[in-house]
Amino acid sequence: MIVVLRPDATQAQVDHILEKASQLGLKPHISRGVQKTIIGFIGPEDVLRVTPLDIFPGVEQVIPVLSPYKLVSREFKSENSIINLSGDIQLGAQRIIVMAGPCSIESYDRLRSIAQQVKSAGATVLRGGAFKPRTSPYDFQGLGEEGLKYMKAIGEEFGLLTITEVMDPRDVELVSRYVDILQIGARNMQNYTLLNEVGQSSKVVMLKRGLSATIKEWLMSAEYILSNGNFNVMLCERGIRTYETATRNTLDINAVGVVKEKSHLPVIVDPSHSTGRWGLVRPAARASVAAGCDGLIVEVHDAPEEAYSDGSQSLLPENFEGLMAEVRTIATAIGREV
Amino acid sequence: MIVVLRPDATQAQVDHILEKASQLGLKPHISRGVQKTIIGFIGPEDVLRVTPLDIFPGVEQVIPVLSPYKLVSREFKSENSIINLSGDIQLGAQRIIVMAGPCSIESYDRLRSIAQQVKSAGATVLRGGAFKPRTSPYDFQGLGEEGLKYMKAIGEEFGLLTITEVMDPRDVELVSRYVDILQIGARNMQNYTLLNEVGQSSKVVMLKRGLSATIKEWLMSAEYILSNGNFNVMLCERGIRTYETATRNTLDINAVGVVKEKSHLPVIVDPSHSTGRWGLVRPAARASVAAGCDGLIVEVHDAPEEAYSDGSQSLLPENFEGLMAEVRTIATAIGREV
Amino acid sequence: MIVVLRPDATQAQVDHILEKASQLGLKPHISRGVQKTIIGFIGPEDVLRVTPLDIFPGVEQVIPVLSPYKLVSREFKSENSIINLSGDIQLGAQRIIVMAGPCSIESYDRLRSIAQQVKSAGATVLRGGAFKPRTSPYDFQGLGEEGLKYMKAIGEEFGLLTITEVMDPRDVELVSRYVDILQIGARNMQNYTLLNEVGQSSKVVMLKRGLSATIKEWLMSAEYILSNGNFNVMLCERGIRTYETATRNTLDINAVGVVKEKSHLPVIVDPSHSTGRWGLVRPAARASVAAGCDGLIVEVHDAPEEAYSDGSQSLLPENFEGLMAEVRTIATAIGREV
Amino acid sequence: MIVVLRPDATQAQVDHILEKASQLGLKPHISRGVQKTIIGFIGPEDVLRVTPLDIFPGVEQVIPVLSPYKLVSREFKSENSIINLSGDIQLGAQRIIVMAGPCSIESYDRLRSIAQQVKSAGATVLRGGAFKPRTSPYDFQGLGEEGLKYMKAIGEEFGLLTITEVMDPRDVELVSRYVDILQIGARNMQNYTLLNEVGQSSKVVMLKRGLSATIKEWLMSAEYILSNGNFNVMLCERGIRTYETATRNTLDINAVGVVKEKSHLPVIVDPSHSTGRWGLVRPAARASVAAGCDGLIVEVHDAPEEAYSDGSQSLLPENFEGLMAEVRTIATAIGREV
Repeated sequence: MIVVLRPDATQAQVDHILEKASQLGLKPHISRGVQKTIIGFIGPEDVLRVTPLDIFPGVEQVIPVLSPYKLVSREFKSENSIINLSGDIQLGAQRIIVMAGPCSIESYDRLRSIAQQVKSAGATVLRGGAFKPRTSPYDFQGLGEEGLKYMKAIGEEFGLLTITEVMDPRDVELVSRYVDILQIGARNMQNYTLLNEVGQSSKVVMLKRGLSATIKEWLMSAEYILSNGNFNVMLCERGIRTYETATRNTLDINAVGVVKEKSHLPVIVDPSHSTGRWGLVRPAARASVAAGCDGLIVEVHDAPEEAYSDGSQSLLPENFEGLMAEVRTIATAIGREV
Repeated sequence: MIVVLRPDATQAQVDHILEKASQLGLKPHISRGVQKTIIGFIGPEDVLRVTPLDIFPGVEQVIPVLSPYKLVSREFKSENSIINLSGDIQLGAQRIIVMAGPCSIESYDRLRSIAQQVKSAGATVLRGGAFKPRTSPYDFQGLGEEGLKYMKAIGEEFGLLTITEVMDPRDVELVSRYVDILQIGARNMQNYTLLNEVGQSSKVVMLKRGLSATIKEWLMSAEYILSNGNFNVMLCERGIRTYETATRNTLDINAVGVVKEKSHLPVIVDPSHSTGRWGLVRPAARASVAAGCDGLIVEVHDAPEEAYSDGSQSLLPENFEGLMAEVRTIATAIGREV
Repeated sequence: MIVVLRPDATQAQVDHILEKASQLGLKPHISRGVQKTIIGFIGPEDVLRVTPLDIFPGVEQVIPVLSPYKLVSREFKSENSIINLSGDIQLGAQRIIVMAGPCSIESYDRLRSIAQQVKSAGATVLRGGAFKPRTSPYDFQGLGEEGLKYMKAIGEEFGLLTITEVMDPRDVELVSRYVDILQIGARNMQNYTLLNEVGQSSKVVMLKRGLSATIKEWLMSAEYILSNGNFNVMLCERGIRTYETATRNTLDINAVGVVKEKSHLPVIVDPSHSTGRWGLVRPAARASVAAGCDGLIVEVHDAPEEAYSDGSQSLLPENFEGLMAEVRTIATAIGREV
Repeated sequence: MIVVLRPDATQAQVDHILEKASQLGLKPHISRGVQKTIIGFIGPEDVLRVTPLDIFPGVEQVIPVLSPYKLVSREFKSENSIINLSGDIQLGAQRIIVMAGPCSIESYDRLRSIAQQVKSAGATVLRGGAFKPRTSPYDFQGLGEEGLKYMKAIGEEFGLLTITEVMDPRDVELVSRYVDILQIGARNMQNYTLLNEVGQSSKVVMLKRGLSATIKEWLMSAEYILSNGNFNVMLCERGIRTYETATRNTLDINAVGVVKEKSHLPVIVDPSHSTGRWGLVRPAARASVAAGCDGLIVEVHDAPEEAYSDGSQSLLPENFEGLMAEVRTIATAIGREV
């Protein structure tokens, strides 16, 4: 931590800061410049983070140096983490994993029909919501456990792994009984009771980036899960909120590279939510693979006009096939596979 | 709901839309202009909201007309809601209510000392966190139930009402036993399981605006609580996330007026989080009262240098007294009182 | 400037950095911590700002310490700047100055009628655009010099000072002949040729904050004007662009306090553009005065339904009178006057 | 334009609106629903855009239907525009055009050396700034005409086309004498006097998106140029400002697809400014090509450590060669070429 002093800081003020720091076990290094005096503090970072040195008299600015996350960082683990999704399926390795399915599980038949089609197009994981976070209390909230049962049965029938969102810490056990991957949605990225709960589970977790979370905050939320003992975490960029209204969200494609630089965790991209319009999903998926993501999660529906949610951004199965063909050639071009 | 057709929409496409609408029980009104044809649909709004008419062939744009919230709207209730906090204390009426206290409850003695000082400066409600949502899993997470006990005892001793944050739906009952007002924090504004839980309670709820929630989404989250039967809801503007980094958040002062226009619920402002720096708290508090808020919630600490959290934005008790004096004169200037 | 090294930085890399720094005349201070090594560089700041030390091998992060502006800073001038607008009218002193008038100058008669009414309500400066920056090339672009002539004549008739926007560096001389204050609009905040041009003038300049300019960038743009020799600069907060669409812009009320802290220049607020809707202008004006601004600039029109531009956010004269009455009581409450 | 009435609108208010509309030559279509009454107005769009119907008593909301741009729209011209850059070089066709070079022209020798290297790696256009828009008045402002002379000579020597930024309307003629493409920078996207000036030129213009411009505003700025008669316009996405600070800007990759949908103009991407860090430039370039852009503009410097500006985001020539190889394979994968 670096403390920049005000030009008019008095010696008494400096002494007060040094005394406080010394009580906390910190060792200072002072650099006196013509215009500013700077003190660098070395010591246990938790102490540094918590002490509000910026309000000490004479202090102009306090600059943190250490990143607040540890277990998720590249410094903690330099090679990429590879997550075993099942016997032979790995996320974070050479192969780019595609997850696809409807926004919500609407009925057994519809889910089965979509599952069959995404499987045949090459998807590895079936997605579908049983508990839906809806902005309006009057909108369809999901089929609950009934939906989970469909998912398990259909996943097994077609040899698809399954992913679904869990919203309530009380549901983690229930949901874990039925699906392979637990999704933490964007709205719950900083729902710490939920993060702690899935952190104590051994299930693979996909952590979506919050609507306006910085990459640092996103990694801190992942740190909650890892610090509870669960290292099977993948991150999912799903678009951020900006002033632009032409799209539902702004796909932060740079986030793929930044996360790869800061963390060893795999990163996947959701081209459906990060655009919000089906006509933009394919270019977004191509761009994401070209940028280096480890997987995609795509909304597919065989009758988007009748979807209970997210119809506007769902691909028809034939369009999803087209997407698979495109990302396959791009993956090949950059030395990966789909 | 209004549907704008593409200039090249065919008659078959229009018929397809009209047929679908008719199945849903909607009545269309068609206006054909030189450049665009527009269809207005009248009918049950839930149907309209869910059907993704924007993906029907021939459709260029779909524009919702009805606001998605009902119970929180001015149209539902035209006069301001007044919430009875206790026998003689009302929120949303003539008097502006001030809530103050430390960010976290750190110890019995500290809380008692701060409570005494904010009471003597004129605060009505004591704030303090027992369960703390912290970006880092390694930071102080609060004293839990122990803290709640302190709060109850000290609130009663000084005749202060109490408010604290509840983060876990499983804690609603516990927290309700100890405090008068339940706070839903910004990170949990769209934690629907939590909203449903406090909606089923009869406690007064303060719903903070999410970090990047639109006013519409914020009102939709309030709608979750009201639609569960709990109408004792106040909204709290606490600053939004923007590109500006000179302050921790950007106080959206316009939100006070917009909420007053759209909703009957009382609005309070948190000048501590919406600035993030104690030196800016007083101007923010003055501005909020001038803009027409119904209350303030302010972080006060008698040794900010030693605070476990939010030390940078906490006011010293003497500074809080200054704030109270200032907002009192401003309240008088606009015909209210503190 | 502070350089944080990567944990794996080699001695050769450190030597390379130190050698480069030494060539530039910089003196390093090295602090070696357990996890990170930090080098503080002291020296001429322009050199520091330009050299991209962040790309030197072994460097993790470079943190600037000195603020990039000088003449506009509180460190350069600790007391508030007071600008003489005319013989007895000062901006930045005890009295809060109100500027008012139509968005565009539409005709002699209309401008005269509005001028008369804002004068009688207590305005000091008449605003009105002769050259209009319009998003669409097909919208009314202003009356040009003809409008300036009206402004001068009407300003003199009613004893009002005048302000208008200048958009083209080639027009600075022309506009200066007719009005008292030159306005640089938000879209031109970083139009450096224009800033240099008004910097070489002796006219008072009002510099609006860019739509998404940080406070630091805004002050840097003011620095352009001061560094050309013109110190008669006032800053105008006019709302920033955020994700919120309920208002045209988000009034960054915190900016008033931040600018007062960082700079000696006066700050005024535009409650019309920062809300975009006339119904929110009065609360925004009250809040701005309560927060400590030195002036207001308000759009007033006597027939907003027929205004050529910004009709939605223009106050009727009687509403402007109401605003004046309100800000007067608030100014009094905080020890100022209008 | 669609007008939504308030539920409590009186008949007199409706009549007032209809009367006003009739005076303006507009034909209304009224739809009366259970909750809301809606009036669609058909007529000349300029009239509709300017009249502030939202402030008429009884009006709740006004919704524009027609897009405000014409000449740049797909409706005006359905096939993609192809711009002839020189005899055999076309932008917007099969081939993706790469522009590369230093941020600033620093000296004849340096520019020549970089030009030689980008040419040999496959670039078609040489970029380099002679007039630099710098946030600080104390930073290097460019070599001016001297730099333009270098550019012309070196472009001719290596058979490279040239592009440079023009900031001052008075410089358009001068700059046009030396280079092939005029760049309008992000800060000047709404500098309408400059847009009008380049609109009256016959030079090819590259219009960068403003820092926080919506896609609609960006297209409106292009409309300024086309409406002056110059149709040789390419758009350049260069990253937008968001709350995320891990990168200098957020590359809005969705913008490529949205612009392609709304407009016939070619779109290029600047992966240097849209990331701000050289380590992220290659993934951004790959993603942009995968998303469907028509060109790239990349900062390259052979000694970034000594660059006068933007050293942090400049690629070394060998790194630029790597970029070219990568985008070539991706272009092939999607059926284009570089």
